[in-house]
Amino acid sequence: MGDRVIIEQLKKIVGEKGWLSDAEDLAPYLQEWRGSWHGATPVMLMPETTEQVSRILAECNASGTAVVPQGGNTGLCGGAIPDTSGTQVLLSMRRMNRIRSISAENYSMVAEAGCILADLQRAADDIDRTFALSLAAEGSCQIGGNLSTDAGGVNVLRYGTAREQALGLEVVLADGTVLNSLRTLRKDTAGYDLKQLFIGAEGTLGVITAASLRLFPKVRQRGTALLALASAEQAVALLAELRGRLHDQLLAFELISAPAAGLAEKHIQNVRMPFEIAAPWYVLLESALVDDGTEFQDEVMRAFEQGLVTDAAIAKNEAERNGFWHLRHSISEAQKHEGASLKHDVSVPVGVVGQFIDSATLAVERFCPGSRVMAFGHVGDGNVHFNVSQPIDWTAERFYAERAAMAGIVYDVVAEFDGSFSAEHGVGVLKRTTLAHYRSGAEIELMRTIKAALDPRNIMNPGKVL
Amino acid sequence: MGDRVIIEQLKKIVGEKGWLSDAEDLAPYLQEWRGSWHGATPVMLMPETTEQVSRILAECNASGTAVVPQGGNTGLCGGAIPDTSGTQVLLSMRRMNRIRSISAENYSMVAEAGCILADLQRAADDIDRTFALSLAAEGSCQIGGNLSTDAGGVNVLRYGTAREQALGLEVVLADGTVLNSLRTLRKDTAGYDLKQLFIGAEGTLGVITAASLRLFPKVRQRGTALLALASAEQAVALLAELRGRLHDQLLAFELISAPAAGLAEKHIQNVRMPFEIAAPWYVLLESALVDDGTEFQDEVMRAFEQGLVTDAAIAKNEAERNGFWHLRHSISEAQKHEGASLKHDVSVPVGVVGQFIDSATLAVERFCPGSRVMAFGHVGDGNVHFNVSQPIDWTAERFYAERAAMAGIVYDVVAEFDGSFSAEHGVGVLKRTTLAHYRSGAEIELMRTIKAALDPRNIMNPGKVL
Repeated sequence: MGDRVIIEQLKKIVGEKGWLSDAEDLAPYLQEWRGSWHGATPVMLMPETTEQVSRILAECNASGTAVVPQGGNTGLCGGAIPDTSGTQVLLSMRRMNRIRSISAENYSMVAEAGCILADLQRAADDIDRTFALSLAAEGSCQIGGNLSTDAGGVNVLRYGTAREQALGLEVVLADGTVLNSLRTLRKDTAGYDLKQLFIGAEGTLGVITAASLRLFPKVRQRGTALLALASAEQAVALLAELRGRLHDQLLAFELISAPAAGLAEKHIQNVRMPFEIAAPWYVLLESALVDDGTEFQDEVMRAFEQGLVTDAAIAKNEAERNGFWHLRHSISEAQKHEGASLKHDVSVPVGVVGQFIDSATLAVERFCPGSRVMAFGHVGDGNVHFNVSQPIDWTAERFYAERAAMAGIVYDVVAEFDGSFSAEHGVGVLKRTTLAHYRSGAEIELMRTIKAALDPRNIMNPGKVL
Repeated sequence: MGDRVIIEQLKKIVGEKGWLSDAEDLAPYLQEWRGSWHGATPVMLMPETTEQVSRILAECNASGTAVVPQGGNTGLCGGAIPDTSGTQVLLSMRRMNRIRSISAENYSMVAEAGCILADLQRAADDIDRTFALSLAAEGSCQIGGNLSTDAGGVNVLRYGTAREQALGLEVVLADGTVLNSLRTLRKDTAGYDLKQLFIGAEGTLGVITAASLRLFPKVRQRGTALLALASAEQAVALLAELRGRLHDQLLAFELISAPAAGLAEKHIQNVRMPFEIAAPWYVLLESALVDDGTEFQDEVMRAFEQGLVTDAAIAKNEAERNGFWHLRHSISEAQKHEGASLKHDVSVPVGVVGQFIDSATLAVERFCPGSRVMAFGHVGDGNVHFNVSQPIDWTAERFYAERAAMAGIVYDVVAEFDGSFSAEHGVGVLKRTTLAHYRSGAEIELMRTIKAALDPRNIMNPGKVL
């Protein structure tokens, strides 16, 4: 078999400890962590060097063998899982996990694709700097995957997404060519900015093997408050005000609906709302402090006096701060106790988040009476996790059967507001048809043109994104 | 003549007031503003709508007619000037100059390509926001050109380059297809981020017709100081320190060498150094203030006590602040009084700016004894304007004859430090061969692949960049 010969060649490139093919060993890498997708592969390759990646891709390109790059396998759209044909080679970046260099003076580091995000955060911390990317999966996700999906997370308001953290990339192209653009420059107008192509491309245009990354000064102190508000529109107005008043030092501005907060309080231990009277909306506000906290307190008080917030609790210590964040982080977990939920990671312009939530809620309740909208998310970035819990008297199966229809209802409203059906989770296989439906013909056509130009044999993660 | 028929067709698309072909009318658009490049064209088209641009490009693509897009014609590398063949159509964006929308709550606006940068700054100011892009040509440069060259300027340290200001673009592709990606989202992972392709591509991949742009809160107050330092290395160390201490609120960190400051003092009216003893290096430091200025003063004092700076003057009022900036802005002008100068807009990693300047100065003095290095620039971005004035006893002609050789000397040192031979001025025609020389074969090849894929008939600004 020609195929078998190729697999043997590929194994030789990575050496004895560089591959897995036993079904049991492979299992964790062939299923999405929640079990939503399962795939098959003849071999998982674990290269240790860029040169090995280059030789692997050259071999695969020559033989027309499909390659699926995988980082920490924490994605939510199935982008890192091979299909079920059993012909796609899995390329795990986990052994390319060295920090090649780090510089406090240059506020930068160069890290290989397989570095765990939390390890990069620690490395920056060790030299009194911050690597700003932070998200729930940071203990196991890898920077290569973060860049390939243009990951967002909790610090986007202040620092931008993964894209903004990248100063340069090392990429292996489909034919094995190594593209070294690992510069750590702040300004560079020497021709096209090639790295941008690969950020957010989910491994369909090449394999990111290393990245030079931006570091920031550490935030010395932060102020955290939980605010009660009359409406989501008020939250948008408050955000617009506070950005200016707090010197554009906001770190988080997370909106939580009353039903979402209620669920967390009901189902999750140690979640307690600090307010006597329930409000329709809450905001978890966090800002870097520029003094002893006086200004932060004054501005929260001022928002209260102006009627922008109806109640406010400022964290007096780390325990209270953790309590507020515990509430925010408990929502997804709490939803599980209420049966099935359909999740929609969407974004709209920040200024219309309130209107969007109102419109989408109406549309959902009309489509499926009794379903319960749990809206929350990174409103500072216009990113709403618009989750819908099943009607109490439905079965999960019945509700899940409405998945596509419900998504259509929500995404149609998103489109009305010029938003995106994928804010920070990418496309993968999950939203491939969604992409084709909601983006214009011209956009899809140009994406295809680029894909065909960079990967003419369609070996790079085929069947994902496009 | 087929060509004449095409020109008549193009004129019809834009209507009577939409074109110029009289030599006198065309003159200002056919030469680079300093006179470094002159071109010729059968017609300058001035479309008023995206649809007209679309029809123009469709026509030009069908007939294989080259198109040179032009904004405010303030570029420094000849990217907006047609060649001398007289066959390239000039596409001026000046009549597409509407602000389509602006929103304080969403911190964004949508502006057409022909909008003058200063007009956009004013529009943002009117709604209590800042449009952060700012550069010397802002009174006449256009946002389409700024984006097409990924312009830098004085605010990059805090806000990033033109690229970071773009939330979305409307672009007309070579074949006339309109790509509308004018979303104003902070997070969007729905497929490839197509707008990135056109930013910094200098009109070689399509024509940017409009952009949705990011706004920021206004900086209420700023502190400005002129600092004297023993070395450029100290400046780098000081920058690394102050970024953290001043809450990452630095707006400018401009390095000025003693010779550069000396020239400004000698030749330009009202430039006065506030120090009794001259120092080898100066830094113009500006930061947003988070209090009444006490912290800023304290931190400057602390830098002095730590020996990072040898002297310091804090601007006590707007007049003193203007005086410091007058010094910074007078350097280029002052150089003219010292005869010919060869200029190099380069960038290196911020952490090695000092070492780079030392190495490059040595190399230049060895190559051309008696030549005088005037180094200054946006050191916060690693961007050095490494200018060299002629030896006093040379003629300008003799010195200019060394232009290419001198550039080679400087750019070789830049390459040693993993820098860029073009920090913020682009490539145009000036640095086309430089690009081919200093960037890797893989990078150039990929740029060509993209160019061929997006503009197969090579009608978009041919002969520029690649």
